[in-house]
Amino acid sequence: MKLKNDTLLRALLREPTPYTPIWLMRQAGRYLPEYNQTRARAGSFLALCRNPDLATEVTLQPLARYPLDAAIVFSDILTIPDAMGLGLYFTEGEGPKFERPLREEWEIRDLSAPDPVAHLGYVLDTVRQVRRALAGSVPLIGFSGSPFTLACYMIEGQGSSDFASAKKMLYERPDLLHHILTVNAAAVTAYLNAQIDAGAQAVMVFDTWGGVLSHAAFHEFSLTYTARVVAGLTRTHEGVRVPSIVFTKGGGGWLESIAATGCDAVGLDWTVDIGAARARIGARVALQGNLDPAVLLSTPQAIEREAGAILERYGRGGGHVFNLGHGISQHTPPEHVSALIEAVHGLSGGYH
Amino acid sequence: MKLKNDTLLRALLREPTPYTPIWLMRQAGRYLPEYNQTRARAGSFLALCRNPDLATEVTLQPLARYPLDAAIVFSDILTIPDAMGLGLYFTEGEGPKFERPLREEWEIRDLSAPDPVAHLGYVLDTVRQVRRALAGSVPLIGFSGSPFTLACYMIEGQGSSDFASAKKMLYERPDLLHHILTVNAAAVTAYLNAQIDAGAQAVMVFDTWGGVLSHAAFHEFSLTYTARVVAGLTRTHEGVRVPSIVFTKGGGGWLESIAATGCDAVGLDWTVDIGAARARIGARVALQGNLDPAVLLSTPQAIEREAGAILERYGRGGGHVFNLGHGISQHTPPEHVSALIEAVHGLSGGYH
Repeated sequence: MKLKNDTLLRALLREPTPYTPIWLMRQAGRYLPEYNQTRARAGSFLALCRNPDLATEVTLQPLARYPLDAAIVFSDILTIPDAMGLGLYFTEGEGPKFERPLREEWEIRDLSAPDPVAHLGYVLDTVRQVRRALAGSVPLIGFSGSPFTLACYMIEGQGSSDFASAKKMLYERPDLLHHILTVNAAAVTAYLNAQIDAGAQAVMVFDTWGGVLSHAAFHEFSLTYTARVVAGLTRTHEGVRVPSIVFTKGGGGWLESIAATGCDAVGLDWTVDIGAARARIGARVALQGNLDPAVLLSTPQAIEREAGAILERYGRGGGHVFNLGHGISQHTPPEHVSALIEAVHGLSGGYH
Repeated sequence: MKLKNDTLLRALLREPTPYTPIWLMRQAGRYLPEYNQTRARAGSFLALCRNPDLATEVTLQPLARYPLDAAIVFSDILTIPDAMGLGLYFTEGEGPKFERPLREEWEIRDLSAPDPVAHLGYVLDTVRQVRRALAGSVPLIGFSGSPFTLACYMIEGQGSSDFASAKKMLYERPDLLHHILTVNAAAVTAYLNAQIDAGAQAVMVFDTWGGVLSHAAFHEFSLTYTARVVAGLTRTHEGVRVPSIVFTKGGGGWLESIAATGCDAVGLDWTVDIGAARARIGARVALQGNLDPAVLLSTPQAIEREAGAILERYGRGGGHVFNLGHGISQHTPPEHVSALIEAVHGLSGGYH
């Protein structure tokens, strides 16, 4: 079935589009009252992720409200280590934790990549249900955390500002970290390909924590494994190209290396000048980003001005997917998202 | 009085030195048992900062233990807003807070730069006492938070991962933020010059939070005001040059602009490749940095290897002050600091 709105896929492949497509990281989230209602019905964030009916419902909620150009499957970046048996759970206000973080060498040696069909079927079911419900209106994006980002949580057992335990292993026992990353890369590749099989029309790797690494360590411990994932991705499904996006938060210094992984698009956080980024890597990849999510906390006038500034900095022609430079804040007034999408759709026509 | 060890000052001015000098951000801190003892005697962190005798004592502690090439006055980056009347206090494990953060427009319009002699005399007394106690052994560094970093805390009232309130003001009421920053720039300039008058032989501006800004906002709201501070600094005191260092955490994308403020040296966080940084700005400024503080949590072997890698990436010649890329972790084993200093002093001779 041909997509009614394929601007996202065309922009990711640097083909011409009549305007700049837009979607928002974490677009199905706590800033939406209807999301909070469904989450309350599910009982918890994790129960919501694991219930394909409800996960489908929240995936579609922002599409019902806004003329977004893509859906992204509602899930968590840490489903893979959970499927490995580490026991993912969430505590109110403290984010994700693992019951059994990797502490002992034998636990690390015992790790293996989970079969996504056997162990992550609930995500694949959600992908299938969302695809059916979208009925060809806009494309569906699948995603995973990067091998390094997963390893951060697997070793630390929870979020952290500096992931000191993971880094301690990196410097003290790089062999152990390389083993974890090798397993993770295989797991992420299989997981994303299973999402593609189930109907994801583009995939994104979230390297949320690669930016905590030194220049050398980022290349050795994060990018190498992201590149391995990208190289293993299904490039074409049922005759249609499936574009891939790699996003490293704090990765503005490494754009050339990220673009060289072979991905189709590079996500930019809001600290990067998108005009300079285009000059550096825009001939090889599409760019996705990069409004500071804090702009959405201000006023419709400021939102229009700042969105316009990004469109102007990117300049004429295709290859740009508008997004935030990080996930949307739960404190965002929902009407500010309307203002943003209206600004991007309205102002971008002049650049195409 | 001529300094016995002036390697720091020479390196900051890109003059030849026999080896690469080293000091560590937060070198007088919680990883040292003797620091914790003095702090316990003081009663609190803030009482310690405000007592020149005890602040002098902790400033000197790391120099008694290690052959460091500089002292840095023990103080807090938030002394200026405290002197403005915002009421600095600390809660265990939560960092600095203000009793009276800036909430109303009239509070912002009422702000004025405090006279450092009248209101920050305790810091100046500490500077004088430390200078006397050092007796010309190594130079003493004075410091302040940058105008933008101070504003973040003044508006937010406490630390934050994204400083959403400060950014909301930035996008909604840039005029108000510019007013705060204008006052802060005058305050920081007067404060650093007072430290120089009291005996500080180099000064450093910590732009700890400039890196949370977008490319455009960083230049407009952080760098403009840091540059104003640098331009207003006393360049020569009693016939001796007083070098200035600017450090923006997360500022790796903006090194050229930071170097163009007129500072003598640019501090680098650990995400930057110091070799690439030297190629970009090393002809104009010295570089300070940039070991990942997490390396100090690993092993002496890894510390020597990683320190050696930074020296090698910087390459031959002067203009490098070794440091961490951020403050030292309180979990650092004190003997690992010995290993680092030994490695830097031992290995760097070959590059000079």
